[in-house]
Amino acid sequence: MSHNSFGHLFRFTTWGESHGPAIGCVVDGCPPLIPLTEADIQGFMDKRKPGQNRFTTQRQEPDQVKILSGVMIDEDGVQKTTGTPISLFVENTDQRSKDYSEIKDRYRPGHADYTYDAKYGIRDYRGGGRSSARETAMRVAAGAVARKIIPGVTIRGALVQMGPHRIDRAAWDWAEVDNNPFFCPDAKMAAFYAEYLDGIRKAGSSVGAVIEVVAEGVPAGLGAPLYGKLDQDIASALMSINAVKAVEIGNGFDAASLTGEDNADEMRAGDGAPLFLSNNAGGILGGISSGQPIVARFAVKPTSSILNLRQSVTRQGEEVDVMTKGRHDPCVGIRAVPVGEAMLACVLADHFLRHRGQVG
Amino acid sequence: MSHNSFGHLFRFTTWGESHGPAIGCVVDGCPPLIPLTEADIQGFMDKRKPGQNRFTTQRQEPDQVKILSGVMIDEDGVQKTTGTPISLFVENTDQRSKDYSEIKDRYRPGHADYTYDAKYGIRDYRGGGRSSARETAMRVAAGAVARKIIPGVTIRGALVQMGPHRIDRAAWDWAEVDNNPFFCPDAKMAAFYAEYLDGIRKAGSSVGAVIEVVAEGVPAGLGAPLYGKLDQDIASALMSINAVKAVEIGNGFDAASLTGEDNADEMRAGDGAPLFLSNNAGGILGGISSGQPIVARFAVKPTSSILNLRQSVTRQGEEVDVMTKGRHDPCVGIRAVPVGEAMLACVLADHFLRHRGQVG
Amino acid sequence: MSHNSFGHLFRFTTWGESHGPAIGCVVDGCPPLIPLTEADIQGFMDKRKPGQNRFTTQRQEPDQVKILSGVMIDEDGVQKTTGTPISLFVENTDQRSKDYSEIKDRYRPGHADYTYDAKYGIRDYRGGGRSSARETAMRVAAGAVARKIIPGVTIRGALVQMGPHRIDRAAWDWAEVDNNPFFCPDAKMAAFYAEYLDGIRKAGSSVGAVIEVVAEGVPAGLGAPLYGKLDQDIASALMSINAVKAVEIGNGFDAASLTGEDNADEMRAGDGAPLFLSNNAGGILGGISSGQPIVARFAVKPTSSILNLRQSVTRQGEEVDVMTKGRHDPCVGIRAVPVGEAMLACVLADHFLRHRGQVG
Amino acid sequence: MSHNSFGHLFRFTTWGESHGPAIGCVVDGCPPLIPLTEADIQGFMDKRKPGQNRFTTQRQEPDQVKILSGVMIDEDGVQKTTGTPISLFVENTDQRSKDYSEIKDRYRPGHADYTYDAKYGIRDYRGGGRSSARETAMRVAAGAVARKIIPGVTIRGALVQMGPHRIDRAAWDWAEVDNNPFFCPDAKMAAFYAEYLDGIRKAGSSVGAVIEVVAEGVPAGLGAPLYGKLDQDIASALMSINAVKAVEIGNGFDAASLTGEDNADEMRAGDGAPLFLSNNAGGILGGISSGQPIVARFAVKPTSSILNLRQSVTRQGEEVDVMTKGRHDPCVGIRAVPVGEAMLACVLADHFLRHRGQVG
Repeated sequence: MSHNSFGHLFRFTTWGESHGPAIGCVVDGCPPLIPLTEADIQGFMDKRKPGQNRFTTQRQEPDQVKILSGVMIDEDGVQKTTGTPISLFVENTDQRSKDYSEIKDRYRPGHADYTYDAKYGIRDYRGGGRSSARETAMRVAAGAVARKIIPGVTIRGALVQMGPHRIDRAAWDWAEVDNNPFFCPDAKMAAFYAEYLDGIRKAGSSVGAVIEVVAEGVPAGLGAPLYGKLDQDIASALMSINAVKAVEIGNGFDAASLTGEDNADEMRAGDGAPLFLSNNAGGILGGISSGQPIVARFAVKPTSSILNLRQSVTRQGEEVDVMTKGRHDPCVGIRAVPVGEAMLACVLADHFLRHRGQVG
Repeated sequence: MSHNSFGHLFRFTTWGESHGPAIGCVVDGCPPLIPLTEADIQGFMDKRKPGQNRFTTQRQEPDQVKILSGVMIDEDGVQKTTGTPISLFVENTDQRSKDYSEIKDRYRPGHADYTYDAKYGIRDYRGGGRSSARETAMRVAAGAVARKIIPGVTIRGALVQMGPHRIDRAAWDWAEVDNNPFFCPDAKMAAFYAEYLDGIRKAGSSVGAVIEVVAEGVPAGLGAPLYGKLDQDIASALMSINAVKAVEIGNGFDAASLTGEDNADEMRAGDGAPLFLSNNAGGILGGISSGQPIVARFAVKPTSSILNLRQSVTRQGEEVDVMTKGRHDPCVGIRAVPVGEAMLACVLADHFLRHRGQVG
Repeated sequence: MSHNSFGHLFRFTTWGESHGPAIGCVVDGCPPLIPLTEADIQGFMDKRKPGQNRFTTQRQEPDQVKILSGVMIDEDGVQKTTGTPISLFVENTDQRSKDYSEIKDRYRPGHADYTYDAKYGIRDYRGGGRSSARETAMRVAAGAVARKIIPGVTIRGALVQMGPHRIDRAAWDWAEVDNNPFFCPDAKMAAFYAEYLDGIRKAGSSVGAVIEVVAEGVPAGLGAPLYGKLDQDIASALMSINAVKAVEIGNGFDAASLTGEDNADEMRAGDGAPLFLSNNAGGILGGISSGQPIVARFAVKPTSSILNLRQSVTRQGEEVDVMTKGRHDPCVGIRAVPVGEAMLACVLADHFLRHRGQVG
Repeated sequence: MSHNSFGHLFRFTTWGESHGPAIGCVVDGCPPLIPLTEADIQGFMDKRKPGQNRFTTQRQEPDQVKILSGVMIDEDGVQKTTGTPISLFVENTDQRSKDYSEIKDRYRPGHADYTYDAKYGIRDYRGGGRSSARETAMRVAAGAVARKIIPGVTIRGALVQMGPHRIDRAAWDWAEVDNNPFFCPDAKMAAFYAEYLDGIRKAGSSVGAVIEVVAEGVPAGLGAPLYGKLDQDIASALMSINAVKAVEIGNGFDAASLTGEDNADEMRAGDGAPLFLSNNAGGILGGISSGQPIVARFAVKPTSSILNLRQSVTRQGEEVDVMTKGRHDPCVGIRAVPVGEAMLACVLADHFLRHRGQVG
């Protein structure tokens, strides 16, 4: 079952609400003898951390991760995984005590307020509770562990569209991704986004985005027909992220417009494996990795919390106008970049172990 | 684990290869006392069945489904489920005995030939083996059972794009879907598709498609945060179908281009529940159904089997040109319509039971 | 979920009722390239097959197993697993058409008639339906596949107690197990059992038994703390067999009577691993295999179907006296020997793959 | 998968080592709107807590449980579950910093030292690490939540044998269980145990025990054929507890000695359901609850940590004599009573939700 867990052999379970004392996750199934320190994880946490510039929420969270179990310092003084569950723990430090009376009975449009109530009959309305994007911090933590499992794999992500504005793919430069607050690989477009998003932010509005994540160095053979396909599990992983509404692999929706001649990747003799002449498949054929880079994209909807009045109703069924005050991301898609990378890492780690289990 | 199974409480497991003696599935977890006959299932099988017109593969398969277990005729003479596993069985009758020597060592571009070999070191090359679209027949069978589980739900699908040609959504008429061989809800576009696909077919080529599936009457509250989200499981379900490369919910990728004002669905007071003024969310908020129609779309890549020569290599690493003779669908996306409906039905049935389990 | 499936990486799902057209199972997760023919499986089926002597039910079932998927003949003409689901299929040929009106409304004492009705509100009363021991045929089939997965392991079982009569463990001779119809390793006791069980049978009565299963050659390191312990999964596997009411590992219940000095197995230096001086632990410490033989025992209750009148009630709540006519085993524990072996094989295969997945 | 998780719909995952900073568990799938405070859980924690008398380990742990997520104070001021994961957290306060150099390389007989090393190649040797009985504290915490799920069920446990000394079942008085430090329902035998165990303790030795757990008020219909049987899952739950080597349901091993006449529980007309005239089945028929009390027993081996020298080897393969100093339970079976109750509660909660999911 997967209420709050993801994965099979590499499996993590998250817990915690936005304004509770802490959030955390338990990573289970990690191989033993992998060097792992809090610092290894913290670097990725910091990438996702809020409040780092004017384009993300001003909530101030150090997001300091602690490892509470599953590691041991070996005889050489290196801290390593022991194969037992790794408990990762982050205190919530900036849950401002405030008056929630205004929002506790109002269903904010675009949020999960109504649906949580419809399902459970009760909900933690403080800061979005369980449905808050704060939970994604623990995905990043789990992903940091996952990255250590497959040798030689590089997993990177980039923002490739903000609002209706796509990057110029010809200008793609991975080195640029860390040079701007948008994880944008196109320097020119990054400059444009800064101005564009300032306008959105000042208007109290928000905007969506598209993220691309890429894994290089993935061995051929990962995945499992027919309901454990690698692309299926990537779709599941990315769609499980808050605010994500679409996922595609390789050519994705564009594949629909192509002919078989244009879409199928031809092959020539390579070095011990076929050399593919293109990568329309995004590195996956029949649900199994081909050895080419795994390429996936996902769309993040605009932040539903905006400063403009919207029509809604209360729990009691009265009509109201709602404005969501508080500290929010004008483009939550930006911080989804490290989250998307982390989820891709978790899927690949899981399938690496699953493949090793079945095939050796 | 999910090598060849899908779902949790409503769970099915498929088995079988394209050219083996039979294919089948085991549906487990179905509630008892649901009236179920082979005829109930056969109607859906017939929609997906090949060889019904010139636009689908000429393989002739009656696809006659048999129920081998899990049902019992009650005192009133009505055959009902007993709550035990339902074994569904379809004989393969048109596995032409032919010479496979030409293809058994060649990796067909766009197919899973190479990746199966890379994973397993062995593969059933006859008609695509396990990776054949023939497997989808059992999804349709499982889906026919799933449809009976949630009272009052209607699940329908339609082809909304073939190659680069989209339907006119303003012309959408569900009644048209059964009037043309494309499951197209736009009569005018259906006529165009006939001509267009004839051209593709005669050229020995193929083309992709986009399918939309819609579930109406789904109660609010189905889904489970955070790794059992309803949209996540729909994405997983649809991406598990052969040749699918992209999935979106509601506005999907278009949501990235919108502002929070335009994307979040406003609400007014309704009859016992909020009345949503739009359905950009596709019926799902925070991973939980809102009571609005569930709307999902998925892209099917062009059939990789085409009659034109493509560059490839053999198992032994020699360069060859490959042409895939045989009987194929020029647009495999057409027959994906009933398959997509079935998968949506299975996800909803599973979540209906899961919700009932946790919440009552 | 595990309604009708067992295992994780090596997983099988059974279906079918006693008097339906067939029974079967789907074995999923089997490694590829393992030689596997129907004959490999049939030998084990024949051990469990009814009607072979006067001490088991006179139902005549050839129990001829067919492999419907998941195998392929390779270039050397050897049939091997392909890594895809293996569908195993056995026709029911001796479901005598008879009048069930007498039993369909009566709850037979000791049987699951009432509980199935209480759960499902409907049940297949013909020959016990899903709760029939006939289902165990498919466990044996799955176990035959499982045996091929761990190299160098020998899995054997023996009946060590019938009614109150235990074998003399000092007289244990594995070679005797196939020399008598009871799978009894003590030749003298086997002779006694023949006479004893004849008496039970002629009296229309039945009697229970205790079975011991042993796996030799299991590598150290299989198992997983804390809810995937090897002994836990063996207990689960054996307790899932029809009519089993108790399971123990190593010393089992006798361990309660011992002191720590007497129970803990001491060690001396061995050849690359500790040499244990005893095996009170039954080969498992902390849920993980120690390299010593795995030893488990389980108790099978006396067959509930007897020819003597017992007090009961009908579905309608009327008091009746019930006598279960038909063909039954006077000691169903005998045929539980190959079933217990099979379940142990399945647990070990699953944990072998799980360990390989996590640890490599 | 179940490395460190137990259950399906009601599922908990534990983490933590004996001498790490904390231990904890995540309870997932709990229904919403169930009143739950730390005090509700603490009462059960206190029953299991060490150091309460001279018969249990002198480790001093307050075992103060904290709820970190999954609850919310409702409008009436009552703290209730919200349906999201419940994170339970206990600090380790008495992990004496000491010199572990003596034990870190020695395999203590009867412990999991060697097998953890054989599996993982690394292990946390401080206080037994993950294999310490300290983990069972979190089972008790999860069980306290589980108890709240099925209305009207009473779950109790008792020690029924210490060493070779069984209680007199005719003297069974549930009220006595809380009157002695052994959870013994036979007052006379409890007095004997005090003297007996003093002798064992002073000799630096240890002894095993048998525990019986009983659930009354369980509705008929819980369980699932054939690999989700209620008794199977109870066996799995109890065998997953540290040091448990045997499990039986109802008559258990004694059923082997009986005839069908003596073992099958007869029925007479009852009030809306059959009235069983005995409970040899322990409340379960065909894997499904009958409405009678569920009765299970399990054997706990003697504590392996004793003060007497035993033969063993080091990691490096050298022969040594080992004596396990430190604070230990002379009969770890005593504190297994609340643990067994908790595990039974978790199985029943899980099956209650599973049944409600499938059948409604």
